[in-house]
Amino acid sequence: MCQLLGMNANVPTDICFSFTGFKARGGLTDHHRDGWGIAFFEGRGARVFLEPCASADSPVAELVRHYPIRSLNVISHIRKATQGEIRLENTHPFQRELWGRHWIFAHNGNLLDYQPTLSGRFLPVGSTDSERAFCHILDTLAQRFGHTPPAPQVLYAALRALACHIGQSGEFNFLLSDGERLFAHCSSRLVYVLRQSPFPVAHLADEDMSVDFNQVTTPDDRVAVIATLPLTDNEHWVQMTPGSLLSFHLGQPEILGENTTVAAPAR
Amino acid sequence: MCQLLGMNANVPTDICFSFTGFKARGGLTDHHRDGWGIAFFEGRGARVFLEPCASADSPVAELVRHYPIRSLNVISHIRKATQGEIRLENTHPFQRELWGRHWIFAHNGNLLDYQPTLSGRFLPVGSTDSERAFCHILDTLAQRFGHTPPAPQVLYAALRALACHIGQSGEFNFLLSDGERLFAHCSSRLVYVLRQSPFPVAHLADEDMSVDFNQVTTPDDRVAVIATLPLTDNEHWVQMTPGSLLSFHLGQPEILGENTTVAAPAR
Repeated sequence: MCQLLGMNANVPTDICFSFTGFKARGGLTDHHRDGWGIAFFEGRGARVFLEPCASADSPVAELVRHYPIRSLNVISHIRKATQGEIRLENTHPFQRELWGRHWIFAHNGNLLDYQPTLSGRFLPVGSTDSERAFCHILDTLAQRFGHTPPAPQVLYAALRALACHIGQSGEFNFLLSDGERLFAHCSSRLVYVLRQSPFPVAHLADEDMSVDFNQVTTPDDRVAVIATLPLTDNEHWVQMTPGSLLSFHLGQPEILGENTTVAAPAR
Repeated sequence: MCQLLGMNANVPTDICFSFTGFKARGGLTDHHRDGWGIAFFEGRGARVFLEPCASADSPVAELVRHYPIRSLNVISHIRKATQGEIRLENTHPFQRELWGRHWIFAHNGNLLDYQPTLSGRFLPVGSTDSERAFCHILDTLAQRFGHTPPAPQVLYAALRALACHIGQSGEFNFLLSDGERLFAHCSSRLVYVLRQSPFPVAHLADEDMSVDFNQVTTPDDRVAVIATLPLTDNEHWVQMTPGSLLSFHLGQPEILGENTTVAAPAR
């Protein structure tokens, strides 16, 4: 299995603090040693750092931890391989272009006997169930909506139906972003925390490290952090309901359809 | 304008030495300060480092320079913006998936009034002529060959015709790779050097740094390095003929059709 980390904000925000705790789970405080990756959207652009080795030992992960890349949407993943060898092409997050936007995807779970029929428009490069699912999602969206992206509500409904369909093959927690919204699907476990003014002094669960967000933010900043397991031990992390899909936009969940469970921000 | 750097090898090889000289041109020994990027293929996987700032000042470029990522195909680019703002989405190299392979592309030159008709299968995320050309190339290949990649000779001929066609709009030096072959098109200036046993002691043109490749290779290793301008000042760099397309495979140019100019390796 693997672990997921996502961030969605209303102002470009760095993820150094959360990534510090998350990175430790890739071989130090937990056993996810089979690769790691992180994708940052900056405007319409995306940059993705990938390594098929443990994040706890990685010089690239060490650089990312200290290098404040400011982004509205971030998706990160540490891997404990289930399907697919430990190779770069099987390392999450995965990236494709659709409708002139980059799309980024990472998965936690395991899909059994999952062999979707793909048109060929999006094909897996590696051999994971996860990349197959990502191609399946984008292929379906491209076939259904052609060359024009649908309205957010329509996109949300399509993703929810797809997540439900693919989830019949097994555990399917995922994070997906086009740089504007971050979609989080909980199949079994996914939690999130909302941070806004007055900000907490947050303390990592995996390392003895704290940060007072009031020192590095303005009162209008809003940030949502989504993870497989809580990254801090003194904040209110909301457990997502299994089977639910949340759309995070500008640092908070937005109501785009049924089954959107929105919690109040932590105070 | 910009500068290109490519490497194609028959065994996984690091590019630290060449990248050291190339990186210096991004703001130190030359004025290409508007972004830089480098893509490494490892097996079928690709990892791409991108930054919309000068490589000479970049901590990520500094890490790449010292971190020996071993690859059969590398494409790097330093940018002096002509079309498109200085933004991440306009930073080369660009990446797309076709036929279940990653494709990587970087361009040196300037295409004027170039607005190709695109089907929508591949669309630019940014606003450069370069990314439009990349989408145009892949779109044409996908339309012509469907879901099955053609034989190398057929692919070469298609790329040569496309390069010639797009080159009518302006300067169009480019590097393109699917991880197996590296295609280099010279519109105005592109040079390459072939390294094989007995290897030279090469000395950088941009920094006072030498390396004796015999210390870090085996007698069977073969490496081709392609660049806008020679990176070393004591090797035999071959000037490509304007209008020619070379396919590099396993560390040397291969004959796949007409207009393939192949030079003997440096001794």
